[in-house]
This record gives sequence, C-alpha cells and structure tokens, in this order.
Amino acid sequence: MAMEGYRGFLGLLVSALLVGFLSVIFVLIWVLHFREGLGWNGGALEFNWHPVLAVTGFVFIQGIAIIVYRLPWTWKCSKLLMKSIHAGLNAVAAILAIISVVAVFDYHNVRKIPHMYSLHSWVGLTALILYIQQLVVGFFVFLLPWAPLSLRAVVMPIHVYSGLLLFGTVIATVLMGVTEKLFFVLKNPSYHSFPPEGVFTNTLGLLILVFGALIFWIATRPQWKRPKEPGSLSLQLNGSNTEGLEGAMSISSAHNMDSADAELCSEGAARKRTLGLADTGQRSTM
Amino acid sequence: MAMEGYRGFLGLLVSALLVGFLSVIFVLIWVLHFREGLGWNGGALEFNWHPVLAVTGFVFIQGIAIIVYRLPWTWKCSKLLMKSIHAGLNAVAAILAIISVVAVFDYHNVRKIPHMYSLHSWVGLTALILYIQQLVVGFFVFLLPWAPLSLRAVVMPIHVYSGLLLFGTVIATVLMGVTEKLFFVLKNPSYHSFPPEGVFTNTLGLLILVFGALIFWIATRPQWKRPKEPGSLSLQLNGSNTEGLEGAMSISSAHNMDSADAELCSEGAARKRTLGLADTGQRSTM
Repeated sequence: MAMEGYRGFLGLLVSALLVGFLSVIFVLIWVLHFREGLGWNGGALEFNWHPVLAVTGFVFIQGIAIIVYRLPWTWKCSKLLMKSIHAGLNAVAAILAIISVVAVFDYHNVRKIPHMYSLHSWVGLTALILYIQQLVVGFFVFLLPWAPLSLRAVVMPIHVYSGLLLFGTVIATVLMGVTEKLFFVLKNPSYHSFPPEGVFTNTLGLLILVFGALIFWIATRPQWKRPKEPGSLSLQLNGSNTEGLEGAMSISSAHNMDSADAELCSEGAARKRTLGLADTGQRSTM
Repeated sequence: MAMEGYRGFLGLLVSALLVGFLSVIFVLIWVLHFREGLGWNGGALEFNWHPVLAVTGFVFIQGIAIIVYRLPWTWKCSKLLMKSIHAGLNAVAAILAIISVVAVFDYHNVRKIPHMYSLHSWVGLTALILYIQQLVVGFFVFLLPWAPLSLRAVVMPIHVYSGLLLFGTVIATVLMGVTEKLFFVLKNPSYHSFPPEGVFTNTLGLLILVFGALIFWIATRPQWKRPKEPGSLSLQLNGSNTEGLEGAMSISSAHNMDSADAELCSEGAARKRTLGLADTGQRSTM
C-alpha cells in the first residue's frame, strides 16, 4: 500500500531506530565502563540493571510499540496481528520496567536505604502502575473480541492520549534518574568539573530525548496512520472518532476468518478481511 | 458558538487553571518558606528566582498560551487578536524564562560554579533557544501578513508539534531541576528521611506534571479546536492540512478589515470577517 511522504517516514524511522539503539548502547557503556557492571548481588551491580532495563524496555521498546501500526509494510497484515504485536511489545516493556524497579528495591533493602522518597521514584512508580493499567484495559477492550464498539470508540482517544503521555512521562523520569545518579556518584571529580562520565551520560539523556521527539512526530502524523479498513465508514457513530470502531471491526473480522492464523499477513488475508469486514459491519449494526 | 462537550471542557479548564495556579503558589512557598526567599544579590536569594520564574513563565503561562485558541468565548474574536494573545503570552513566558536563566548564571558567576555541566542545564538551555526560535518563526510566518499560504501550510504542523514537544521538554527540565536542587540542599535531614521540604517539593513536581497532562489533553481534542472560518474550504491545498491556511486567511482578512481594532471581538466582527474571508480567499488563489 502506498504511503504519503514515504521517504520522509523512512528517514525518520531509521533515525528513531538508530537513536534508540544508540541510547541502549550508551546506557550499557555507562554501567559497564563507567560504573561497576551488571550482576544480581543486592549491590551496585544489581542497581545497574535499573537504568539498563528502564532505557531498553520502558523507553526503546515502548517507543517501537507506539509506532508499530505506522509501518506501511504491515498494512496488509491483519489488525489482530498488529494489535498482538503492539500489546506484546508493551508487555515486554512492562516486564523489563518491573524488573528494573525490583532491582532498585532489592538494592535499597540490602543497603538499608528508604524507598520512594525522591520525585523520580514517585513519578516513575506512578507511570509504571498506570502503564500496566493501560496494558490491561487495552487487552480487555481492544484485543479480546467482546467489548462493544461503543466502548471501544470511547476508550480509543483516551488510550492514544495516555500512551503518548506515559511515554513522555517515562522519558522525564529517566532524565530525572540520570540527574539523580550523576549527582550521587560524581564526587571526585565532581559533576561540575565536566568528567567524561558526566558528559557521556548527559549525552545519553539527550539521545533519549531525541528518540522521544522522533517517536512523537511519527506517531502524530495523520498521513502515516494505518489506512482505515474498507467498510469501516458504514460503522461510524458520529464521524468524530472512527479509530476505535475500525480497530474493533478488524478484530471481529479476524476472529471470524477461516484459517486466520495462516493468513495474518498477506494480500489474500487483506482481501479476505475486507470481505469479512463488510459482513461483520452489517452484523454489528443490527 | 456551541462547543461539543462544553461541560467537560470547562471542568478540565478550571482544573488546569487550579493546578497551574497551585504550582505557582507551591514554588513560591518553596523558596519563601523552605529556602532563603527572593532577592537579586548574586546569592541564594537570586538563584531562587530561577524556579519561581521557570514555573510561572515557562510552565504556567506557556501552558495557557497553548490552549488560548480553545476557549469557546474567544471564537467570535478575530484570529488576529487570538494570535496576538498567543504570541504575547509566549513572549512573556520566554522573557521570564530568560530572566530565570540569567539569575542562575549570575549566581554561578558570584559563587564561581561552572556553567552548563548538568543534563538539566543542557536540556533547559536547548529548550529555551528552540522556544525563542519557535516564537520568531511564528511571528514572521503566522502573525505578520506577508508569508504565503503554502509556507504557512507547511510550517503549521511543525509549529504545533514543536510547541507541544517544547512544553513537555520544559516540564521534564523542571522535574530534573527539582531533583537536582533537592539532592543539593537536603543534607541534614537528608532527602531520603522524608523531610517536609522533600515531600512538599515532590508534590510541586507532581502538580506540574498534572498541569502538563491537562494542557496536553485540552490541546489535542479535535472537537475543541477553534472552528474553521467559513470560506476556508475553498483554499484547501490537498485536504491534508487546512489549519495553516485557515490561520493565514483569517490574518489576511483581519488586516483587510476596516476599523479592525474596534471590532476585534464581536459578532459583528466575526460576520464582517467571514465576508472579508471570501474576498481574501479569491484574491489569494489568483
């Protein structure tokens, strides 16, 4: 399927992947070269999993999960498959984020450091809880086939807004975490004497910010949205929001297809889905 | 003019104003009660203008500037007036942000502390420079009447995206600043022993985040956008983006109105603008 401004999209996608990948490399270099390395011993090595998993899971994988519907090569795939990938990536991000928090709690327990006193921890834990809630709500409302279309239409704009807001909040939390850690550990030489670790980790912070900016741009371009399934127009409730309905229908149609598993991602499946859609649409409006 | 979901809008607007106002009160209590107060002496009192002006100008006033077009009571006002208010508020925000940065540089100079070593300073100064650039570009492309419609159509989505991105980045910078300052000053009792100042200032951070979330929601609801001026359809370039054109036309029309100053905000002005629009539209497409 043709995409408007395909070259621009491709350039930004490659940039996002590159900057995101570089962020993961940078956080690994930070803990392996500048800090003590990685381990699970209740000490600094265990703490170091916190930034590594937060950046890898909660920033990079979450960012990719957000834009997965925008990849034009997937537009011939069934929406059910894309939703499963979207949910799966977000679930992986959540699991890595949870492990990253466990590492800190464990480290604090061993070192007898109180939990949850900093703004970083308040915002970060709130974001993680809301992220898991978003995952659960998304699973029941959009991935399972039983939610009524009207509910999906109401929840979709909140889902999209919450997703972008949480992504931004997670990035802000990571920047606070970097700030906190550098002021903790850079004593001699001090952070304000521009030691290599300070400059390097500041750069990591900038990379994460640029990654967020690229994902935010890609995710909010209307011309790069996955095209609506044919037949979706017949189901518009009031014209103001069709995304939820469209999603709802493609789920239903995929569930109604024969041998859907074998044809999740082909032109044939797309054609068959279109036929299924019209059928589903008629039944849904009865 | 009627607005879809007016009550919801009103509730969220009042919440945003309340939370934003509370953030300003909180930052004042922080520096006046918990810190040394305010002054311009090169010492801590001067530094304290930094958080006060950053939160008041760069967060609160910028946030209000972003949603000023959404106020339904202003929809009968000319777009030129609303653009002037939008630009004016952003200019005030920029000036307060610049003074807030001057306060820190001055403080650092007196105390012989190096400048620009922290991630907070890197991101904050970058955001301020880009914010001023956004203001200048916005002034020349949207407020002055000479930019061609095609240029406005290209710049508008970038302007909207950059505005929201910079607003989010400024909030992230403030959260980093709070984190940095609390780790600096809370030594005895330590930040991790939950002293009143720590809990209070963490709460300030949460308030700022909630303010940002409310502004982000209000600014991104399509049903709360200022209605397009009648006649704007005739000027659509390719149907994918009419916002820039609409803005462009209302500027031109306002500039072409007789006694525009006296009728910037009345039903009569709105009607007259509509008439002017059709005229401007025809001339613009010649």
